[in-house]
Amino acid sequence: MMRLKIENAWLVTMEGEDSPYKGDLLIEQDRIIKRGDCSANEADEVIDGTGFAVLPGLINTHQHSPMSLLRAYSDDLKLMDWLDQKILPAEANMTEEDIRAGARLAMAEMIKSGTTTFADMYIHMNAIAETVEEVGIRASLTRGLVFHEPDGGVRMAEALDLIDQWHGKAEGRITTMFGPHAPYTCPPDALRQVIRLAEERDIPIHIHLAETVEEVSTIRQKYGQTPTEYLHALGLFDQCHVLLAHGVHLSESDIQLLKGMQGGVSHNPVSNLKLGCGIAPVHKLQQEGVNVGLGTDGAGSATTLDMFEEMKAATWMQKLQYGDPTILPAKEVLKMATIHGAKLLRLDHEIGTLSPGKKADLILINLNKPHLTPLHQLESLLAYGVSGADVDTTIVNGKILMRNRKLLTIDEKVLLRDVQIRAERIVQSV
Amino acid sequence: MMRLKIENAWLVTMEGEDSPYKGDLLIEQDRIIKRGDCSANEADEVIDGTGFAVLPGLINTHQHSPMSLLRAYSDDLKLMDWLDQKILPAEANMTEEDIRAGARLAMAEMIKSGTTTFADMYIHMNAIAETVEEVGIRASLTRGLVFHEPDGGVRMAEALDLIDQWHGKAEGRITTMFGPHAPYTCPPDALRQVIRLAEERDIPIHIHLAETVEEVSTIRQKYGQTPTEYLHALGLFDQCHVLLAHGVHLSESDIQLLKGMQGGVSHNPVSNLKLGCGIAPVHKLQQEGVNVGLGTDGAGSATTLDMFEEMKAATWMQKLQYGDPTILPAKEVLKMATIHGAKLLRLDHEIGTLSPGKKADLILINLNKPHLTPLHQLESLLAYGVSGADVDTTIVNGKILMRNRKLLTIDEKVLLRDVQIRAERIVQSV
Repeated sequence: MMRLKIENAWLVTMEGEDSPYKGDLLIEQDRIIKRGDCSANEADEVIDGTGFAVLPGLINTHQHSPMSLLRAYSDDLKLMDWLDQKILPAEANMTEEDIRAGARLAMAEMIKSGTTTFADMYIHMNAIAETVEEVGIRASLTRGLVFHEPDGGVRMAEALDLIDQWHGKAEGRITTMFGPHAPYTCPPDALRQVIRLAEERDIPIHIHLAETVEEVSTIRQKYGQTPTEYLHALGLFDQCHVLLAHGVHLSESDIQLLKGMQGGVSHNPVSNLKLGCGIAPVHKLQQEGVNVGLGTDGAGSATTLDMFEEMKAATWMQKLQYGDPTILPAKEVLKMATIHGAKLLRLDHEIGTLSPGKKADLILINLNKPHLTPLHQLESLLAYGVSGADVDTTIVNGKILMRNRKLLTIDEKVLLRDVQIRAERIVQSV
Repeated sequence: MMRLKIENAWLVTMEGEDSPYKGDLLIEQDRIIKRGDCSANEADEVIDGTGFAVLPGLINTHQHSPMSLLRAYSDDLKLMDWLDQKILPAEANMTEEDIRAGARLAMAEMIKSGTTTFADMYIHMNAIAETVEEVGIRASLTRGLVFHEPDGGVRMAEALDLIDQWHGKAEGRITTMFGPHAPYTCPPDALRQVIRLAEERDIPIHIHLAETVEEVSTIRQKYGQTPTEYLHALGLFDQCHVLLAHGVHLSESDIQLLKGMQGGVSHNPVSNLKLGCGIAPVHKLQQEGVNVGLGTDGAGSATTLDMFEEMKAATWMQKLQYGDPTILPAKEVLKMATIHGAKLLRLDHEIGTLSPGKKADLILINLNKPHLTPLHQLESLLAYGVSGADVDTTIVNGKILMRNRKLLTIDEKVLLRDVQIRAERIVQSV
């Protein structure tokens, strides 16, 4: 049994009200087995954590990983121009191998910026699952289901295939969800079917909700309801564990409907800001006990997948919204990026805190830098000062995927060259 | 005459409507002398710029550099608690040598994140000027003047000393301004005196304005005017070149008063967000022709001095404010961080663009990274994707201050150790 010890680091456990403290962490195979003082002879390998902070790996709860091929491709456009004139035509040119390469690019970026788990919704999920297996990251995978175009049931068949083939696979690193895309792309009958299947199989649901004001008025016109009311009336929140992506435009009564739900909301502030969507009512949701995690959305809107940037944007927006700098403090936003994200993916029994017994998904942050010196309040420094580039080492399931900023399961040079060629081809005819 | 050539890089000139293009840049001593194709034998030293973007060095137009000693020390507090209970008592413990060390820390961070010029307002400016001279960065230095406590004219004497001793010194890298702190700390007579001196000596003025709603109501109560009206009525905008820091709470008629002013507004979005102050009307100011640059404010509020983060926050906030993603596009926010900042410091004849004849203040950004691949639109990638950690090389006045992320004029290790000890002592008794 291989044992890895990280010694003399600042441990940021994310357990309850724990404050960071200096100590050791002992990993055996894929799990954390001890925290605190561990004697040196307990380990086969030792990482000197002096001057480093150890955090649970970050959890990106809403992504479309292959869209990394379209980063910085169509910014500063109105949302519908962005989508119709740029993103959709470019996506139409993507092959399965492009999607595999784009997902790998996203995984490279995530590992380099401290994300150890991500929730993905896209197509050709089999290729993405194979890449996850190979790269060593953890993922909750979802085949997006859009029902307004008839497809002879292909999408649903692929969604079921994904779940059958991959749920619990890759040493348990892959889980799956059902992915009805959004209220405006899923009519009632289709949603009822998905909800029934999700309940039968006990698989969570990942769905977009209330990202734009346009969505709210579309659903209002169609069904005389808010998007949240529409989902609620169909029974989505009765028994299913549900991941709601965005949740920007939620009324007070919408929030009441979400109280007590299993799962929660994935807050994607950078994408929401860049597309001019608005600020999600994160503080209110939290006050009502609704769980809120963080996500980047695809790099086509967010540009990067840096969860530290999302943390900053999230806390800035709530402070702005309330004109109150005490709202959404450092510790809370760090929890959103870790344990709250784990809850959102129904993985909090396995990841999200540095707890003995949990999977060894964790990151080491190098604090020995001008912009991270001096050290007064570590949690403040992590939430407001650190960026993805400060992550030195990334470990998933006990396996080191990056050490001293070098990726160990991806050939970065080959990947970047390959991706550039594919990206140019994809947008050439758009 | 030493000649340095940067070849085959993406040149992001920031001149007019120029788009980035591939080419060479030739530097002789302290100036850019040629742009485009330069033959190899013209240079004594060549930097291979393949895969790099070259930008004018970033210009941080509002800073209190020694406050880097207090980064991540007092976050998530109400502004007055932050100031009265934490920042002011800690600042009271700072010696001149602490200030020197704190300023050096800020300079290390700035050079590492691509800032080549900063505008500073603090005390013990002589120590800061000496550090600027030694480190090789460019700065516009200001002795802050607070008039509500009698000091027997010491502050004003120091302000005049700074100007007399340092304006135009350090190979021209240091310029100076007068620094009446803010409308609420400067009564009319004192401000009139400063304006008169600034006009006589043709020295710009650096002043805080309308950072908080509290300031607006304080000035309203005292003088029956908005802070902007108060400054306008005293003649501040008649002949002086003025740098207005923050400008968050400006009415429509305030903006009319600023039309045609020399200088402009330093927008500090991260600090404004973190302290819950609000969003400055950047887009409106720009529509009215008022020049707007970017700044971080001190690290006591902003945590870091990363100007790329300020660019993101600036464009996100305007997009949010108008619900329109086309507002403040990538190119415009890059200009705010470069040429508009240069105008704000009255240095646009010397810096702010990659123009032959101007000072060689520039940065190289390494694009060969997962989060910066693929390359579609370079300006989008720079504005929305790059962070300070992607800066590879920083050149000021023709001198390389950082190469391959290694600081060449600062011993980083010694600095970080020194700063940690000082910072702990400073806050110990608070």
